Amino acid sequence: MASLQDTVALLERTPAALNTLVRDLPGAWTTRNEGEGTWSVYDVIGHLIHGEQTDWIPRTKIILEHGEARPFDRFDRTAMFRDSEGKPLPELLDEFARVRAQSLDELRALNLTDADLEKRGTHPSLGMVTLSQLLATWAAHDLSHLHQISRVMAHQYREAIGPWTAFLGVMQCEGHSQ
Amino acid sequence: MASLQDTVALLERTPAALNTLVRDLPGAWTTRNEGEGTWSVYDVIGHLIHGEQTDWIPRTKIILEHGEARPFDRFDRTAMFRDSEGKPLPELLDEFARVRAQSLDELRALNLTDADLEKRGTHPSLGMVTLSQLLATWAAHDLSHLHQISRVMAHQYREAIGPWTAFLGVMQCEGHSQ
Repeated sequence: MASLQDTVALLERTPAALNTLVRDLPGAWTTRNEGEGTWSVYDVIGHLIHGEQTDWIPRTKIILEHGEARPFDRFDRTAMFRDSEGKPLPELLDEFARVRAQSLDELRALNLTDADLEKRGTHPSLGMVTLSQLLATWAAHDLSHLHQISRVMAHQYREAIGPWTAFLGVMQCEGHSQ
Repeated sequence: MASLQDTVALLERTPAALNTLVRDLPGAWTTRNEGEGTWSVYDVIGHLIHGEQTDWIPRTKIILEHGEARPFDRFDRTAMFRDSEGKPLPELLDEFARVRAQSLDELRALNLTDADLEKRGTHPSLGMVTLSQLLATWAAHDLSHLHQISRVMAHQYREAIGPWTAFLGVMQCEGHSQ
């Protein structure tokens, strides 16, 4: 089960792991997507930045300050197509590392107790959620986008690997993002 | 489409990216799997090591030396349960980095030409494959296991995130590995 310590351990590592994987990779890996309306690696990094700015800590504060009375603001899942426009990928990776570190500083400053983690908020679509669920989702959301990035990159080699498509799990994954 | 340069760029980064993501992570993330008969992060790193030792460069050499006449040896997908037993995860990560660097040294020393990449070999199950397909699959195999690792880790938070399971693509992925 999720502990705040495990959650933070993962959240701390994601920006550096993504940086190590994709910084200075050829654009063939990072600028291509899975077809119209899908995201490239570049788009995903922009989306992760936007989450730091408007989702995780802002929603934590809404729960702590307003409980269930004030629903979260809706998260704009495509804001990065506007915000990231024209920025080079290394700049986005640096920005993600910076805003993630800020978020974790804010999280630590809140000194959350077990009682805080049980506090409830209102998600605009999902209804009642707890702070514990929100923070666990923050980490799982990182992993969901690492999963997506791996799939988007593998897709670029779908033709190149010939008959091996049958053996690689990632090639059977049907893009489950919403 | 795959170029040898793009393939090598990815292969060079995978060990460091995995190291950055999982080294010293709490065991809750790295030792748990998705249920009986499935793999943990720890198991996957062991499997990647075994691939360097017995799969990619050895098969490249079989193609260059014997063409289609000599089928590849079968790859033991579960050898790591024997080979890695008892080794700490950081040791496996160091070993993966070392054997991958050796493989890439060997690859560069082969000075493969475009004509070499078109050479054919015989896969014991898939039949005729080209060297170009084998090398592209090496990179896609890395990505397939990064995809798997993300999913296995996310699975550990399936209960903890509550209703958000509906929104995260990784939670809909049904484990496509064979």
